[in-house]
Amino acid sequence: MAKDIETTAEQSGTEFSAKDYHDPPPAPLIDFEELTKWSFYRACIAEFIATLLFLYVTVLTVIGHNVQTDPTKNTIDPDCGSVGILGIAWAFGGMIFILVYCTAGISGGHINPAVTLGLFLGRKVSLIRAILYMVAQCLGAICGCGLVKAFQKTYYNTYGGGANELQPGYNKGTGLGAEIIGTFVLVYTVFSATDPKRSARDSHVPVLAPLPIGFAVFMVHLATIPITGTGINPARSLGAAVIYNKEKAWDDQWIFWVGPFIGAAIAAFYHQYILRAAAIKALGSFRSNA
Amino acid sequence: MAKDIETTAEQSGTEFSAKDYHDPPPAPLIDFEELTKWSFYRACIAEFIATLLFLYVTVLTVIGHNVQTDPTKNTIDPDCGSVGILGIAWAFGGMIFILVYCTAGISGGHINPAVTLGLFLGRKVSLIRAILYMVAQCLGAICGCGLVKAFQKTYYNTYGGGANELQPGYNKGTGLGAEIIGTFVLVYTVFSATDPKRSARDSHVPVLAPLPIGFAVFMVHLATIPITGTGINPARSLGAAVIYNKEKAWDDQWIFWVGPFIGAAIAAFYHQYILRAAAIKALGSFRSNA
Amino acid sequence: MAKDIETTAEQSGTEFSAKDYHDPPPAPLIDFEELTKWSFYRACIAEFIATLLFLYVTVLTVIGHNVQTDPTKNTIDPDCGSVGILGIAWAFGGMIFILVYCTAGISGGHINPAVTLGLFLGRKVSLIRAILYMVAQCLGAICGCGLVKAFQKTYYNTYGGGANELQPGYNKGTGLGAEIIGTFVLVYTVFSATDPKRSARDSHVPVLAPLPIGFAVFMVHLATIPITGTGINPARSLGAAVIYNKEKAWDDQWIFWVGPFIGAAIAAFYHQYILRAAAIKALGSFRSNA
Amino acid sequence: MAKDIETTAEQSGTEFSAKDYHDPPPAPLIDFEELTKWSFYRACIAEFIATLLFLYVTVLTVIGHNVQTDPTKNTIDPDCGSVGILGIAWAFGGMIFILVYCTAGISGGHINPAVTLGLFLGRKVSLIRAILYMVAQCLGAICGCGLVKAFQKTYYNTYGGGANELQPGYNKGTGLGAEIIGTFVLVYTVFSATDPKRSARDSHVPVLAPLPIGFAVFMVHLATIPITGTGINPARSLGAAVIYNKEKAWDDQWIFWVGPFIGAAIAAFYHQYILRAAAIKALGSFRSNA
Repeated sequence: MAKDIETTAEQSGTEFSAKDYHDPPPAPLIDFEELTKWSFYRACIAEFIATLLFLYVTVLTVIGHNVQTDPTKNTIDPDCGSVGILGIAWAFGGMIFILVYCTAGISGGHINPAVTLGLFLGRKVSLIRAILYMVAQCLGAICGCGLVKAFQKTYYNTYGGGANELQPGYNKGTGLGAEIIGTFVLVYTVFSATDPKRSARDSHVPVLAPLPIGFAVFMVHLATIPITGTGINPARSLGAAVIYNKEKAWDDQWIFWVGPFIGAAIAAFYHQYILRAAAIKALGSFRSNA
Repeated sequence: MAKDIETTAEQSGTEFSAKDYHDPPPAPLIDFEELTKWSFYRACIAEFIATLLFLYVTVLTVIGHNVQTDPTKNTIDPDCGSVGILGIAWAFGGMIFILVYCTAGISGGHINPAVTLGLFLGRKVSLIRAILYMVAQCLGAICGCGLVKAFQKTYYNTYGGGANELQPGYNKGTGLGAEIIGTFVLVYTVFSATDPKRSARDSHVPVLAPLPIGFAVFMVHLATIPITGTGINPARSLGAAVIYNKEKAWDDQWIFWVGPFIGAAIAAFYHQYILRAAAIKALGSFRSNA
Repeated sequence: MAKDIETTAEQSGTEFSAKDYHDPPPAPLIDFEELTKWSFYRACIAEFIATLLFLYVTVLTVIGHNVQTDPTKNTIDPDCGSVGILGIAWAFGGMIFILVYCTAGISGGHINPAVTLGLFLGRKVSLIRAILYMVAQCLGAICGCGLVKAFQKTYYNTYGGGANELQPGYNKGTGLGAEIIGTFVLVYTVFSATDPKRSARDSHVPVLAPLPIGFAVFMVHLATIPITGTGINPARSLGAAVIYNKEKAWDDQWIFWVGPFIGAAIAAFYHQYILRAAAIKALGSFRSNA
Repeated sequence: MAKDIETTAEQSGTEFSAKDYHDPPPAPLIDFEELTKWSFYRACIAEFIATLLFLYVTVLTVIGHNVQTDPTKNTIDPDCGSVGILGIAWAFGGMIFILVYCTAGISGGHINPAVTLGLFLGRKVSLIRAILYMVAQCLGAICGCGLVKAFQKTYYNTYGGGANELQPGYNKGTGLGAEIIGTFVLVYTVFSATDPKRSARDSHVPVLAPLPIGFAVFMVHLATIPITGTGINPARSLGAAVIYNKEKAWDDQWIFWVGPFIGAAIAAFYHQYILRAAAIKALGSFRSNA
C-alpha cells in the first residue's frame, strides 16, 4: 500500500508533496533545553557503560587469543586453543549488535564517535549531544581497557593491549584508506537502518536495525584486521592507546581519528544527498527537463 | 508516533504522568495463588528440561572438542577435527538463543539462576517462583551433565567434564571480576530485551529478545573461556561440578555463584535506577531546579 | 493485553473457555480431499527439491572439508584450507534455516521425516501427507547425494560420502541416545516455533520461526558430529547411505531412523501433554483440589 | 485467518478469484518513463556502490587470508593468524546481508547480475533497468577490486586477486554444475523472500528477507569454495578477472556467466511455474478431472 501511494505520487508528478512517511525535523545545532533533562544524562551514562563493555569484552578476547596462540608459551595444541581471528571479528561485531540493541532506546546506540559525527552531520543529534557522547565514549573505552589491564597486567602488556597499529607491510595511506572505507560501510548501514523512510517505503524489508549494524562491524573486521587491526571507532583506538601507552600506538593514532571521521562524513553525504530527498531537490531542474 | 507522544509529554513537563506504555505491577514477594496453578509447575518443568538440554549439548561439545584436539590421541589432523573454542562459544550462545525462544512463553526463559535473581530483584517474579526456578535449573543442569557422563564415562572424566575452573595464571580476584562483568552483560541484555517501554519508545528497534540474549552469552564466552571457562550461570557450574566431582571444581565453585549473583544484582540496579523511571523520581529535585 | 486477558481468565477460574488464540482443529488422519489439490503435489515437490538442495550443499561441504584436510594429499597448509567442523555444522544449520524459510509457506518446511512424524503425531498433518512428504524427502536426499557423487566420484568415495556412521569409541546405545536427544531438541524447537498460542501469549517474543529451527540443527551438529556425524534426519542418513553404499553405513542405518523417530515422538508428547492444554485437562482433578 | 480464506476459496473451487494478497502487475519490458526519474539513476548508483563495497571487503578478506596463511612467509603461527575459509564464506554472505538490507529500498538490492536476470525473467524489473543494473554492478565490481589492488599491489597479484578459477582436480562440467546449483539456491531464496504472497499466506513465517539471502550466499560458499572459489555472481567474477588479469581467470570466465545465468533462469521458472499460480493455470484440466 505504502508503495502504491508513492508510485501514484510519482506518476502524478507530485512526488515531493505526497510523502507517506514522516521526516523528523533536523536536530537544532545547540539545544540548551536537553541539558535540563535527566534523559540526556542517562543517555551519556548509557554510552559510557556500553563503550566500556565493548572494549572490555573485545580486548579481553584479543588478549586471550594472543596468549593461547603464543608458540613460545603453549607447546601443546597451539592452534585450536583460541577463538581465532574469526572469533575476534565476531566479538567486535557481536558486541556492537547487543549494545546497539540495548542502548538504542536510551541514547540511540552510537558507541562510536564516528557514528555520532555521521548522525550529527545528518542533523540527527545536536552539537552539544554529539560532543558529550564522544567524551562519554572515549572515557568508557579507556575504563574498559583499564579493566582488562587491571585483570591481567602482564598479559596485557606482553600481548599488544588490543591497540590499533599499522601492521608491517602496509603504508599509512593504505591504513587511512582502509579506515575510511570501513567506517563508510558502518555509517552507511547505520543511516540505512535508521532511515524513517524505510518502514514506509518498503514493507518487505523489516527493520532489524541492530543486527545489520553489528554485521557491518563484523565484516569490516574480517577484511581489515590484517591491515590496521581495524579501528573504525576512534574511542576504541584511543582507549587502547591510552592504557597500552606504547609509542607505536600513539604514532598511528591520527589514522584512527582522521580515517573514521572522513568515512562517516562521506557516508552522511552519500545518504543525505544521493539516496535521500536532498539530491532530488538539487536535481529539480533535471527532472523539469525530462 | 510513540516518540511524538513522549516528546510532547517531556516538553509540557508532564513526563511522569503521560506514559505511552504499560508497566506491569511489581510481582508480589510471596504469591501462594500461583502455587495452585498448573502453569506454575509447567514453568518449572520447562526450566528443568531447558537447563538439562543446555548442559547436555554444551558439555558434549566441550568434551568432543577436547577429545578431537588431544595431541596424544589424534595423531592425524589434530587442528581441524574439532569445532574449536569458537564452536564451543557458539554452542553456549546458540543454545541459550533457542531455549529462551522455546521457553519464553512458558516460564519466561531464564535457564540461569543469575537471570532469575536479577528478575526477582527487578520485581518481575515472586520469591517463591525464583527459588523453585533455581532448584529446577540446578537439577536440570545436574541431569544434563549426568547424561553426557552416562554416554561416555571415560571421555567425560579424562577431558575435564566441562567443569568451570580458574585457569592457570589467573588469580581468584580476576576470575570473580570476569564472572561479575560477564553476568552483568547478560542480565543487562535480558532487562533491555524484556523492558515493556521498549516497544512503545522506539519503533525502529524491533524486539528480537532471544537473539541478543543468546549473543550476549556467546560474546562473554569468547572473552572469558581462557580465564574461567566462563560460568555466568551458577546452575551450569554446579551441574558440571556435581557430576565431574573433582576437588579443583569444588574449590572454585563459590566464584561461579558469588560472581554471577553480584553481576546480576548490579545489572538490575543499573536498569531500574539509572535507565528507568526510578532514577528519574530519585532525581526529581534535580529536575525541579533546572 | 493478550497477557492481561489470560491472567484474568486464570484468576476467574475460566482458563479453558476464554482463550485469546485460535487452535486449528487437528488434521484428519486420512484426507482424500487434499489429494485432488495442486497445492498438495506442489508441497511434495517443494519438499523434494528442498531436501535435494540440503543434501547437495551439506555433503559437498563435508567432502570439501575432508579433501582439504587430508594430510596425505595437502602437504602445504593442511589446517586452514577448509571450513572446519564448525563450517560443516553451519552448513547443516544454515541450509535448514534458508530452506524452512523458503518452503514454510508451500509445504510447512519439514525437510526431515522426523519433523514430519512429530507434526503428524501432534495432528498438524494428515497421515497421507506425512507419508508422501517422507517419500519425497528420501527421494530428494538420494538425488542430492547422487549429484555430489556425479560431480566428483573419486573424492566422494574416498572421503566417506557424507554418510552417518557410529564413530570409533562409541557404542550403539550412545549413538541411539545422541540421536534421540538431538532430534528432541530440533522437534521441540519446531513445535515451539509453530505454536498458535505463541503470538497471542507473549508479545515480547516475536516469531522468527526458521532462524531458531536452523540454530537447533547447528547446535546439535556441534555436539554430536564426533559421535555419529549427526543424523537427526532419517532422509539425510538414508540418502547418503544409498549413494555411498558401504557396509558400515548400512549396518548403523537403523540408529538414524529409530533414534530420530523416538526423539520426535517424545518432543510431540512433551509439547502436547506437558506444555499445552492437554496436560491441563488431564490434571483437572489436581486443579479442582487446589 | 489468511489461511482460512485460502482454504475456503479452494474448497469452493474459486481459488483463482479470491486471493487475499496483491500481485503487482508484471514490469513492462521497456519503460521509458522510468528513465526520466531520479529514483532510477539513484538505484543504479546504489547498485554500483553496493557491488563496489561487496568486492572491496570480500577480496580484501581473501587476500588477507592468503597472506596470513602463506607458509613461506609466516613462520610463526600460520594457522590461527587468519579468519580461515569459514571467515571468507562469512565475508561473502555477511556483506550480501548488509548490502541487501541497505539497498533493498533504493534499488531492490540485487548486487548481482544473476539476481537481476532472475527478477527480469520473473517480470519484476524492466529490460532497461535490468541492463543498467548489470552495467552498474560490473563497473562497481571492477572498481572494488581496483581499490584492493591500489591498496596492496604486490599482495594482490601474489595471492590470486580473489579471482574465480576452476581448482585443480575438477573439470569444467563440475564447475559449471556447481555454479548452476549454487545460483539456483540464491535466486530461489530471493524469490521466496520477495514473494508478495508470503505475508498473506503464512503469518508464522515473518519476513526477514535480507538475512536468508545473505545466508544462502554463505552456504553456497561453504560448499563450493573448494571447487571454483564460488562465483554465483558474474559481476564479482568479472571484476576480479579484469583487475587480476591473468590467463587462467579469463579462460574460466565463461563458467561464471553461463552457470549463474542458467541457475537464475531455472530458479525463476521453478518459482513462477511450479510454486506459483502459473502452474495451477497450466494444470487446470488436471484439477477439473479431480
